[in-house]
Amino acid sequence: MSTRIVVIGGVAAGMSAASQAKRRDQSADVIVLERGPHISYSACGMPYNIGAPARAIEDLVIVDAATARAERGVDVRTRHEVLGLDLAAQRLKVRALEGGGEENLAWDRLVIATGASATRPPLPGLDLPGVFVLRELSDGAAIKRHLAARPVRSAVVIGAGYIGLEMADALRGLSVEVTVLEKLPQVLPGWAKPISDEARAEVLRQGARVETGISVLGVERNGEQLCVRTDRGEFTAGLVLVSTGVRPNVSLAKAAGIALGESGAIATDDHLRTSAPGVFSAGDCAEAYHRVTGRPVWIPLGTTANKQGKVAGANAAGADERFAGIVGTAGFKLFLQEVARTGIDADEAARLGLDAITAVSHHHTRGKNYPGDRPVITSVTAERGSGRLLGAQMIGADAIGKRIDVFATALTARMTVAEVEDLDLSYAPPFAPVYDPILIAATVARKAAERPSPEGQVPPPQARQR
Amino acid sequence: MSTRIVVIGGVAAGMSAASQAKRRDQSADVIVLERGPHISYSACGMPYNIGAPARAIEDLVIVDAATARAERGVDVRTRHEVLGLDLAAQRLKVRALEGGGEENLAWDRLVIATGASATRPPLPGLDLPGVFVLRELSDGAAIKRHLAARPVRSAVVIGAGYIGLEMADALRGLSVEVTVLEKLPQVLPGWAKPISDEARAEVLRQGARVETGISVLGVERNGEQLCVRTDRGEFTAGLVLVSTGVRPNVSLAKAAGIALGESGAIATDDHLRTSAPGVFSAGDCAEAYHRVTGRPVWIPLGTTANKQGKVAGANAAGADERFAGIVGTAGFKLFLQEVARTGIDADEAARLGLDAITAVSHHHTRGKNYPGDRPVITSVTAERGSGRLLGAQMIGADAIGKRIDVFATALTARMTVAEVEDLDLSYAPPFAPVYDPILIAATVARKAAERPSPEGQVPPPQARQR
Repeated sequence: MSTRIVVIGGVAAGMSAASQAKRRDQSADVIVLERGPHISYSACGMPYNIGAPARAIEDLVIVDAATARAERGVDVRTRHEVLGLDLAAQRLKVRALEGGGEENLAWDRLVIATGASATRPPLPGLDLPGVFVLRELSDGAAIKRHLAARPVRSAVVIGAGYIGLEMADALRGLSVEVTVLEKLPQVLPGWAKPISDEARAEVLRQGARVETGISVLGVERNGEQLCVRTDRGEFTAGLVLVSTGVRPNVSLAKAAGIALGESGAIATDDHLRTSAPGVFSAGDCAEAYHRVTGRPVWIPLGTTANKQGKVAGANAAGADERFAGIVGTAGFKLFLQEVARTGIDADEAARLGLDAITAVSHHHTRGKNYPGDRPVITSVTAERGSGRLLGAQMIGADAIGKRIDVFATALTARMTVAEVEDLDLSYAPPFAPVYDPILIAATVARKAAERPSPEGQVPPPQARQR
Repeated sequence: MSTRIVVIGGVAAGMSAASQAKRRDQSADVIVLERGPHISYSACGMPYNIGAPARAIEDLVIVDAATARAERGVDVRTRHEVLGLDLAAQRLKVRALEGGGEENLAWDRLVIATGASATRPPLPGLDLPGVFVLRELSDGAAIKRHLAARPVRSAVVIGAGYIGLEMADALRGLSVEVTVLEKLPQVLPGWAKPISDEARAEVLRQGARVETGISVLGVERNGEQLCVRTDRGEFTAGLVLVSTGVRPNVSLAKAAGIALGESGAIATDDHLRTSAPGVFSAGDCAEAYHRVTGRPVWIPLGTTANKQGKVAGANAAGADERFAGIVGTAGFKLFLQEVARTGIDADEAARLGLDAITAVSHHHTRGKNYPGDRPVITSVTAERGSGRLLGAQMIGADAIGKRIDVFATALTARMTVAEVEDLDLSYAPPFAPVYDPILIAATVARKAAERPSPEGQVPPPQARQR
């Protein structure tokens, strides 16, 4: 009897898990159950794809079900929704959404890779035609169809997180008038103020409108247009995007009694095992170990989903692999800028009882008078006293998305900012000044971390324990 | 009595040292003696400046002598050549090249920052007008004048190291026909073959000619043109650049009995002290500690010169600063590509008695179907068995000059390739595929390092000791 490995969810984590499981155990019977019509697509590529009408949304599909079956030997079943798990019997109930049949399917090992869903605030009108979220490939396809079918002159983006801002970028590129509405006082909530301010400035420079500290009350139909009502007036739009966040899809796991973490996502250990024997979890529905804080965290990202999927799939096939964890690295393009972060910020440090400083530096990216030299803003968080690097955020136009990786690597190595300052980074006028902006940022942070804590800012002794 | 700190050499290391010394000890009398007419310029920017006729070569000057005097309080004396050092008397003899007067100058602390000079092979005709090296700002100025004064239709570059290739790039940009002649079998001698091959392909794609394994016999005048004679025929050119390497300027130090290292450059300790009490050395004339090999090395580069100068200047002013050392990071732009390296290669590893593997991977730099996605070749050297990362080299068109910094940081942290593989690097389609090329390269290298050594390749036990 071959081992049966069932994977719930067929996008990044799920297909990575299934492919890896089959590679590790050729004799295994690997089944993927995916509720949607597509598997294995690059969700992160959707805003850019929407901004390019000539490109088909299917460009983002990495492997389709037929190919996965033929070339990887994985039994992919799309449009199949799992209704419930029986952990004791190692069996699940699945419904074929086309045809409607239900069956029970037994597993030897189970991988839960159910992903996350876009949240919609409880406001009237968010189900109207022309109001979208952007999460699944079908969402992206629907937005593309909407844009192709009619002239959309204006759009309202509700929520100024990175998806909202990426979509503002994509829509501006299509000459759509864009208004971004954010409930909190800044765009990119949770990012350092100078980074957020520069992101806002970039959005404004590119001709989009930004309203922060604004509450959306609802959306109404107004002839061919939509009307977004807020506490500061009404905004008319031909398209409304709701990008107010995501939540992990944990209902199946929760109903079956699988433990969730503090974040609400599925708790996993370093082998991506859940609390249920033989059941693994990976991707946007699961927590990941954060190497800076030493605690589990829920940061749903495509790169983590792929890596976790690989480890969960290998272990489901009998391997003994460890997922090393993340340091919280994320980045995106915003018009002409790139915005990126890694590690934790001062607020997160404070919640961990660390006495942290955050130091901001302004520098530039290339040699003196070299064409393409651009400003870069770097915000570095470090522990006061020890100088241990805790996190960094950057914004700028010149390869910032990859420059952040130096900080990600330094965080993994648990370097101090003084050690970052001593790094031998590459120098040539086409890509760096003699003192790389990261070295300058580390110097500024080291000096700030050396200064004693201002009076009243010393955390109580018990909070400083780690 | 104020302390007198004398600095010999006023370019990168020298001016960094002088400025830092004065900042640390405002009461010090800081004197810079520079043989040439310019101080504090970006030598690395010269090829790019030569490629831009509209830019003045003086654009590369960071601070001039008058400003250094007025704003930094440093007594800068250009066109002053030091003739000899009397270590016992702490006194040097200096000649004013304009005017011709000689004087003795006493020091309390001395910093030797005499830099390096371009080598010229002992061949006839290398002193003809139209034959240049590119090392000092005056060299760059002379090349610019030559190009401005007459139509230069063709150029021969002797030596295919990075200066030679950067100049091939600059001259092609001016529509000059370029032929690069290299004695050794490959361009970029000392770089991994696949990186070198791709560099050569790029030079050819941009319409330059490349001849390797060719011996230059001499240069002759031929009317208005120059004729470069080789063992494979003659090459006519309106400009000849000799870029066959540099050597450290150590004659003053050597004559005074200051110890040189194995490389022939001035030996320094971690405080950049030389063998003579009160005498420091920094920059292209000095060795640096290599953090990967644990040994002194001579790799003359602008970024190291600036950092060493700062440490030497601080210590000359009484501080207790340490130069952390280098990991051998270097990079340059080559037409549309960037080429970069860090750490050591397999040959260097073998000389240290390490059993190393070198693994080459081919990947790409952005998301699937994302505009600007470009190939990248990565060569990783690691110790067999332990998997310790020893070095990396990359070539590609998309921010490669900065992507190498992840390896530089990982080398500093003494990571294994498996640890590099576990890094949480940034991902978004505009700047990375889901698996960053560095993660892919680390996987390929880890697998190679796990394979047992082929028979006969095991180094003898004594050579394996470190």
